[in-house]
Amino acid sequence: MSDDKAMVIFQPSGRRGEVPKGINIIEASRLLGVDIEALCGEKKVCGKCIVRVEEGHFEKYGITSSKANCSAWQEEEEKFINAGRREKGFRLGCMAKIEGDMLIFVPEESRAGKQVVSKAARDIPIDHDPAVRVYHVQVDAPTFEEPTGDFERICRGLERDYGLQNLTCDIFTLRTLPDALREGKWAVTVSVWNNKEIVRIRPGKHEKSYGLAIDVGTTTVAAYFCDLTTMEVIDTVSMMNPQCKYGEDVMARITFHMTTPDGLKRMSDDIIEGLNELIEKAVAATHPKKKKKKKKKGEEAAAQSAEVIEDDGFVEVIEDGKEYLRLSIDDVEDITIGFNTAMHHILLGLNPEYVGMAPFPPVIHHSMDIKARDLGVKINPSSYMFVLPNEAGFVGADNVGVLIAEEPYKHEENQLIIDIGTNGELVLGNRHKLISSSCATGPALEGAQLSYGMRAAPGAIERINIDRETKEVDYKVIGRDAWRKFSEPEEMKAKGICGSGILDVLAELYSSGVITKSGVFNKKELKEFPRFRKNPDTNQPEFVLAWAKESSIDRDIVITQKDIRQIQLAKGALYAGCKLMVKRMGLEKVDVVKIAGAFGTHVDRTKALTMGLFPDCEIEKIMGVGNAAGDGCRAALLDRKKRVEANWCSRNVEYIELTVESTFQQDFMESMQLPHMKDDFPHLRGIVPDDILDQ
Amino acid sequence: MSDDKAMVIFQPSGRRGEVPKGINIIEASRLLGVDIEALCGEKKVCGKCIVRVEEGHFEKYGITSSKANCSAWQEEEEKFINAGRREKGFRLGCMAKIEGDMLIFVPEESRAGKQVVSKAARDIPIDHDPAVRVYHVQVDAPTFEEPTGDFERICRGLERDYGLQNLTCDIFTLRTLPDALREGKWAVTVSVWNNKEIVRIRPGKHEKSYGLAIDVGTTTVAAYFCDLTTMEVIDTVSMMNPQCKYGEDVMARITFHMTTPDGLKRMSDDIIEGLNELIEKAVAATHPKKKKKKKKKGEEAAAQSAEVIEDDGFVEVIEDGKEYLRLSIDDVEDITIGFNTAMHHILLGLNPEYVGMAPFPPVIHHSMDIKARDLGVKINPSSYMFVLPNEAGFVGADNVGVLIAEEPYKHEENQLIIDIGTNGELVLGNRHKLISSSCATGPALEGAQLSYGMRAAPGAIERINIDRETKEVDYKVIGRDAWRKFSEPEEMKAKGICGSGILDVLAELYSSGVITKSGVFNKKELKEFPRFRKNPDTNQPEFVLAWAKESSIDRDIVITQKDIRQIQLAKGALYAGCKLMVKRMGLEKVDVVKIAGAFGTHVDRTKALTMGLFPDCEIEKIMGVGNAAGDGCRAALLDRKKRVEANWCSRNVEYIELTVESTFQQDFMESMQLPHMKDDFPHLRGIVPDDILDQ
Repeated sequence: MSDDKAMVIFQPSGRRGEVPKGINIIEASRLLGVDIEALCGEKKVCGKCIVRVEEGHFEKYGITSSKANCSAWQEEEEKFINAGRREKGFRLGCMAKIEGDMLIFVPEESRAGKQVVSKAARDIPIDHDPAVRVYHVQVDAPTFEEPTGDFERICRGLERDYGLQNLTCDIFTLRTLPDALREGKWAVTVSVWNNKEIVRIRPGKHEKSYGLAIDVGTTTVAAYFCDLTTMEVIDTVSMMNPQCKYGEDVMARITFHMTTPDGLKRMSDDIIEGLNELIEKAVAATHPKKKKKKKKKGEEAAAQSAEVIEDDGFVEVIEDGKEYLRLSIDDVEDITIGFNTAMHHILLGLNPEYVGMAPFPPVIHHSMDIKARDLGVKINPSSYMFVLPNEAGFVGADNVGVLIAEEPYKHEENQLIIDIGTNGELVLGNRHKLISSSCATGPALEGAQLSYGMRAAPGAIERINIDRETKEVDYKVIGRDAWRKFSEPEEMKAKGICGSGILDVLAELYSSGVITKSGVFNKKELKEFPRFRKNPDTNQPEFVLAWAKESSIDRDIVITQKDIRQIQLAKGALYAGCKLMVKRMGLEKVDVVKIAGAFGTHVDRTKALTMGLFPDCEIEKIMGVGNAAGDGCRAALLDRKKRVEANWCSRNVEYIELTVESTFQQDFMESMQLPHMKDDFPHLRGIVPDDILDQ
Repeated sequence: MSDDKAMVIFQPSGRRGEVPKGINIIEASRLLGVDIEALCGEKKVCGKCIVRVEEGHFEKYGITSSKANCSAWQEEEEKFINAGRREKGFRLGCMAKIEGDMLIFVPEESRAGKQVVSKAARDIPIDHDPAVRVYHVQVDAPTFEEPTGDFERICRGLERDYGLQNLTCDIFTLRTLPDALREGKWAVTVSVWNNKEIVRIRPGKHEKSYGLAIDVGTTTVAAYFCDLTTMEVIDTVSMMNPQCKYGEDVMARITFHMTTPDGLKRMSDDIIEGLNELIEKAVAATHPKKKKKKKKKGEEAAAQSAEVIEDDGFVEVIEDGKEYLRLSIDDVEDITIGFNTAMHHILLGLNPEYVGMAPFPPVIHHSMDIKARDLGVKINPSSYMFVLPNEAGFVGADNVGVLIAEEPYKHEENQLIIDIGTNGELVLGNRHKLISSSCATGPALEGAQLSYGMRAAPGAIERINIDRETKEVDYKVIGRDAWRKFSEPEEMKAKGICGSGILDVLAELYSSGVITKSGVFNKKELKEFPRFRKNPDTNQPEFVLAWAKESSIDRDIVITQKDIRQIQLAKGALYAGCKLMVKRMGLEKVDVVKIAGAFGTHVDRTKALTMGLFPDCEIEKIMGVGNAAGDGCRAALLDRKKRVEANWCSRNVEYIELTVESTFQQDFMESMQLPHMKDDFPHLRGIVPDDILDQ
């Protein structure tokens, strides 16, 4: 690298490249295609472009990033960044100039093209039996005749009124007991965990308790904030996994641990800090928003209209006729958490090395009840976190979450459940037997590694149709309802293709005859069409999905032969896995296919079948089940029986290591082909043109 | 106070007084009768006189102590006091000059007259069933066919080899599992707590585990360091309770909490820090002492003779032919702890306010299993502390310790167990019924509040005989085996009277006719004897126990009429308590009297009966049981059944509040009298002269 250039990497997008020294971070972000919010147009007055310069050596990228590689701190920055955040490396993107290699983290609130995390809670049936329940108890004051201790006094009340026996009390909660009892005039509300342990005592009478079900993905962390008494989901909050800066997939993070002395601790600390932020975000969602008052007069009026009434375990605020809860982190009394095995290990500080090494044994399968404080997670100080159990090294607690949400073990029909992420997780079976497996799909299906792949964000192509005759492409982007053919070109502002668009594109390229069943551009048929061309720089064939004038990046958005190969590799891994599992179970066909994960919500089941993600199945029996892993965590939060069920699942689902099957390589090669009749896909008849299907 | 004087208080002795400003701390200590070690005679070279200047306002004494009230730091001090200790207020006594009010703590190692803490372990029968047990387990390495997780793998081994089921593992220990398994080539030693939870995993095969039984007294903290596998007591360690600086008795400490915003936290932090020092001291006792090598040649030879062999769970060192264990704090895998209710609450951070306020309810009676880390106690990170249960506000876990050591509930005969401390605790009963009570004996029996009272330390009079005819006093001091009559006067070096001497003195004054049964000097009989006199300053009658020439303080050591009243008040409180309890139980007499506490080891049972500490009892059935509270903690450490028994005791011993009994005041007044035949003490016949007993 020449002396006047520096390597800059933006996280979590992963965009990287050389930029001239001396430009500011906003300028660099533009050069590398990263959107940073900058409302004031670099006038240094809006404070929206706050980014964090990371410290450390990043082996993977061969750079050492440091605050010292940034121009000196400016007085103007103090208006927006306090001393604590300054210490952590926060800077204004419009002020800080690049003077050396840097890894720059763009916090969610500074991202212009905010990620669309689609993890809304689905309506699945859950019994109401939370691990944490609240009880009111009124006791007599001690006397000389009856000077029994405070704890025994409330235990006697809890046994008399609710039949609870042999309770213990966490020391942190016990410390609050004597004053709570006296403040509440010998009436208290007691939160009891699993009918065993008192984890919170509040003076007086309260009705509510709250919990969080957290799904920690390799890329995204999402949480359902739930009312444990009504089962209502109060809010869904999400964030990027802050570990993304150490690598995009689990193997990269395991490698980071193995090559960096305190790597495990850094990654663990980061995700814990992230969880604490997420918890605060969830809790803050119950607070009324602060409004900026324009006029003095208005302020007075507002002060009168805001009425605070103490009631029901939290402060309830009535403002402008609306009711708000005003909860604090102490009101979070339970957490359930699921993740893949590597994320599980890293978060808990368990050595993830052996999970990444054949035969991939995890440190533990079984679920755990861990005091949140022992992990540094800040909720009610005595509360536990329920950590869902792992199935195997590559089929983690998140898959157990999917299982207890979907309950294939309660049905006679054979279900194939596919959870597509950076790693594909597969479960097949019914009430008699369940097997699971994993396959390395890689990140192609999520948009990485493709020329114009991107995450699900505004401007991402999420739906595609290609006309068989004209090879014209119609498409829809996130953030605009109208399809291309109902819009002016410049209205589209397309930027790339996201996951669901990638599933569509392969199916459409195939069924419109642009590519053959082996995934090769059908040159003979295409030679008349301008969308097919050779890239003048690389001399590689490519197909234009959106013209430059329809884009916001002023370039044609294309899919190349190499891109198609990447997608084929991913879909091939998944299909081969499914096929081997079906064979192992001795089945002819699967009855139901469920697609979970981010894809699960948006997937076009016809196109998923067309591209050959899984063996043939009746179209009506293919369904997206959304964030089933998160739903499983939520089920475990609200129903204790689901925790027992989760452990049963983790022990009774047989894990199959596909890569050791003798036919795996052969099956994998064949699975890269697109579905055709020789492979027997009768349910595609009428969907894919006969001449293509019969080839 | 004049401007040129300052108030100085030494702790833990409590000695206080005004001293001229400008003198150094050693000089002040001499003026106030505090012995600080100063081997070099203030030549500033031995570094033995290290003391700590406390910071803070001490309400009780009306002074504010500060490092700033001390002369400036001197370069010579750096040789002995590092920066960390300097920060904490440590100074050399011979260097630091007094320039204002100061509270000075004299660490144990700097005390010249080291306290004799008599808390050796007694030989009581204990079953071997410790809560923590070690198991060896050898497992197979994971394979593709059997890729089960590490935790499940060892659980399977533990079930197969030892029948252990449904084990959990503390997260701190789980973090060590994967590497321990691989380091030990799939063989590990697992420490299991209560057949439930894995709290330690070590690679390879180990045999041992260790624990501490701790008895936290108001004044003294003592611990038995035990081998959990052999039940052997490896060492007994003790220290002053570092909370002494906040007040000498429990009420003073409760008051400190109520009058000081962070008082509870300060006292709790201090005792926890003290426990950590005690644990380190216990562990260090297993290390070979470092020897100062004189010659280069010797060093080489020593290096050759010191051989370190790794074996059996710890590093064993063979040096000069001697074997040493070399344990670390991680080798402490269990702790049991007992204390009075106020010390219990303060250590655990529980509000002690209500324990000090009628009707004295504790926050909790029941025993607790608390992770040592949750209290900041530094042992094996996953290990628990078993906190013994409390009987009542003034009969604490220490008394439960006494009970499970003495087991009166297993016998038919009625036992009266007296635990004498600043607070007297009484238990009476047998296998059919047990009642307990407490009485405010005050600190007189421990030597406080008397003109020449002192703690058990060299020079303290611990035994006294007074001749009826000549009124001559023979006595023995701690630190010298020969009695006065076999010694030259100047050999005695008497300084004061300690607890056991105080018990003797009242009995001897009475049975020699020096005082009457009502405790008044028998002036008529005494007028011939020079030992009886009126103090020229106070005009109060007093009796000389040791002449100035026999003392190291160059003064006559006397007992005054006021001193005798103080002792009578204390013994009266105890006797009245016993009498009311005997009445409550409907008994004629008690079969056995057991005396526990520091007195328990040294008490002369005849004299204890003569002074009327308790109702009449056959002399042979009066026995000292030493530190029974500590023995009970040790029993609970080595035998889990004792923990269940402890909870049974705390619930089934009925606590009687004596002060609310209608006859209490009357009984108390009468109880100050010394035993005579009208009160019916037949067993004193032949011990106390007839004319005295029949008066």
